[in-house]
Amino acid sequence: MTAAIEKGDLLYTGKAKEMYTTNDPAVLWVDYLDQATALNGKRKVAIDQKGLLNNRISSLIFQDLARHGIPNHFIKQLSDHVQLVKRVKMIPLETVVRNAASGSFERKFAVPHLTKFTQPVLEFFYKSDALDDPFINDSQVAALQVADQATVAEMKRQALLVNDRLKTIFAEMGVQLVDFKIEFGLTADGQVVLADEISPDSCRLVDNQTHQSLDKDVFRKNLGDLTTVYQEVLQRLATVEEGGQH
Amino acid sequence: MTAAIEKGDLLYTGKAKEMYTTNDPAVLWVDYLDQATALNGKRKVAIDQKGLLNNRISSLIFQDLARHGIPNHFIKQLSDHVQLVKRVKMIPLETVVRNAASGSFERKFAVPHLTKFTQPVLEFFYKSDALDDPFINDSQVAALQVADQATVAEMKRQALLVNDRLKTIFAEMGVQLVDFKIEFGLTADGQVVLADEISPDSCRLVDNQTHQSLDKDVFRKNLGDLTTVYQEVLQRLATVEEGGQH
Ligand SMILES: Nc1ncnc2c1ncn2[C@@H]1O[C@H](COP(=O)(O)OP(=O)(O)O)[C@@H](O)[C@H]1O
Ligand SMILES: Nc1ncnc2c1ncn2[C@@H]1O[C@H](COP(=O)(O)OP(=O)(O)O)[C@@H](O)[C@H]1O
Ligand SMILES: [Mg+2]
Ligand SMILES: [Mg+2]
Repeated sequence: MTAAIEKGDLLYTGKAKEMYTTNDPAVLWVDYLDQATALNGKRKVAIDQKGLLNNRISSLIFQDLARHGIPNHFIKQLSDHVQLVKRVKMIPLETVVRNAASGSFERKFAVPHLTKFTQPVLEFFYKSDALDDPFINDSQVAALQVADQATVAEMKRQALLVNDRLKTIFAEMGVQLVDFKIEFGLTADGQVVLADEISPDSCRLVDNQTHQSLDKDVFRKNLGDLTTVYQEVLQRLATVEEGGQH
Repeated sequence: MTAAIEKGDLLYTGKAKEMYTTNDPAVLWVDYLDQATALNGKRKVAIDQKGLLNNRISSLIFQDLARHGIPNHFIKQLSDHVQLVKRVKMIPLETVVRNAASGSFERKFAVPHLTKFTQPVLEFFYKSDALDDPFINDSQVAALQVADQATVAEMKRQALLVNDRLKTIFAEMGVQLVDFKIEFGLTADGQVVLADEISPDSCRLVDNQTHQSLDKDVFRKNLGDLTTVYQEVLQRLATVEEGGQH
């Protein structure tokens, strides 16, 4: 199938990726862009190699997750900036998993930065640029018919599995996984499947030794050169993944 | 017990009530104040008869709920402004039940005003003036150890029972119950019990005929005279309650 795949029409231009159809209606062509945005797209900057780095990092992570019993939309990395994925109907919820307090949690509840949780915290945000991605609870998800109860339960179950595996991967890289955001979609037969990307754009990562941010906060807070930091993440991840294939 | 009850020390001055100890450690003396606040207390105005009206309204509603299988903290109304209640350890969560979209729900999700929900929507807000009562989900409640899972489940169960009964009462009064806020406490042996008050301060009520607000929005939005509106609510409630005792 993927041997003869041909790029089709542009389906969607996102903040970090462009999604194209292909000659196979079940397959999407994902172009990872060399740009970073903040403030829900209001700030946008070209960043050398960012697309290539996130494409590679996300590909390695999704393959690792599949090997560890978490099926997902990833098919294969085609080139530096391109990835093929299974097309799904996206569920417009950002699922956030937190292992320690940071960002909006820290601000809302005035909890000291990086306070560890004994159990991971799960949050949903309603993915809507117009509404500014509001925080949403299960009852509101049901009322707005964003997703049914069984789907929400399955998203939570998979999110916790993803968290367990990601924590292990990042620990082997000498990195603390503070929190991350994932997105799920529905297959034609209604299965909940992990989609989108997992990269330093969507994770909060702290180096165990230096306590430096190894994620998009470098860009959001102007803490240094994003390319250098993402290269470091890729290099450590590749060592763990290509070393072990465990 | 209540015959020889004596007012003790001021325990807490809230935005609408003063709570005093009594000579019985299990009983609190609640003084309903003739004042209204908005913007989390930043705006405060003296309002003739408000304490008396809310005391009477809340007393009638809590007695009705008890008769309908929802036990609560209410003991008796002592005088125009005073009520005796069972002292409980308050759970710092405001439980909001919505039957139709209004207020923060309407704003956050850009849903048309008074859109009806097929199922009631349940929300929790972390009761903290310092944090400005943030919206909180079950997972955050657990992480912050605000309440355990069983307590949260019991609060939801009781909140839905309260909603069912309140909808019936208000329907008989010719009023739509759009949403309301309640508070729960824990008894010494860990039982979840409905506490605080249920009044036009904590409900959003719309007259079925005139579509006018019959609640604190009259004050918040300067729509008219609060005392007149609360008197109307009390009069209709008293007719329903004293007529039926059903
Ligand atoms: N497998 C998939 N099928 C369909 N859509 C997907 C899939 N994976 C991700 N998407 C969607 O494609 C878009 C990816 O582009 P991105 O730049 O991340 O967009 P956004 O600005 O919405 O975050 C997102 O809207 C995402 O939900
Ligand atoms: N049965 C009870 N036992 C102890 N505290 C109670 C009880 N019922 C209500 N309270 C608390 O007493 C206070 C009531 O006063 P109020 O003016 O409503 O305060 P607030 O400004 O916090 O809303 C609230 O803090 C409420 O949580
Ligand atoms: Mg995205
Ligand atoms: Mg109050």
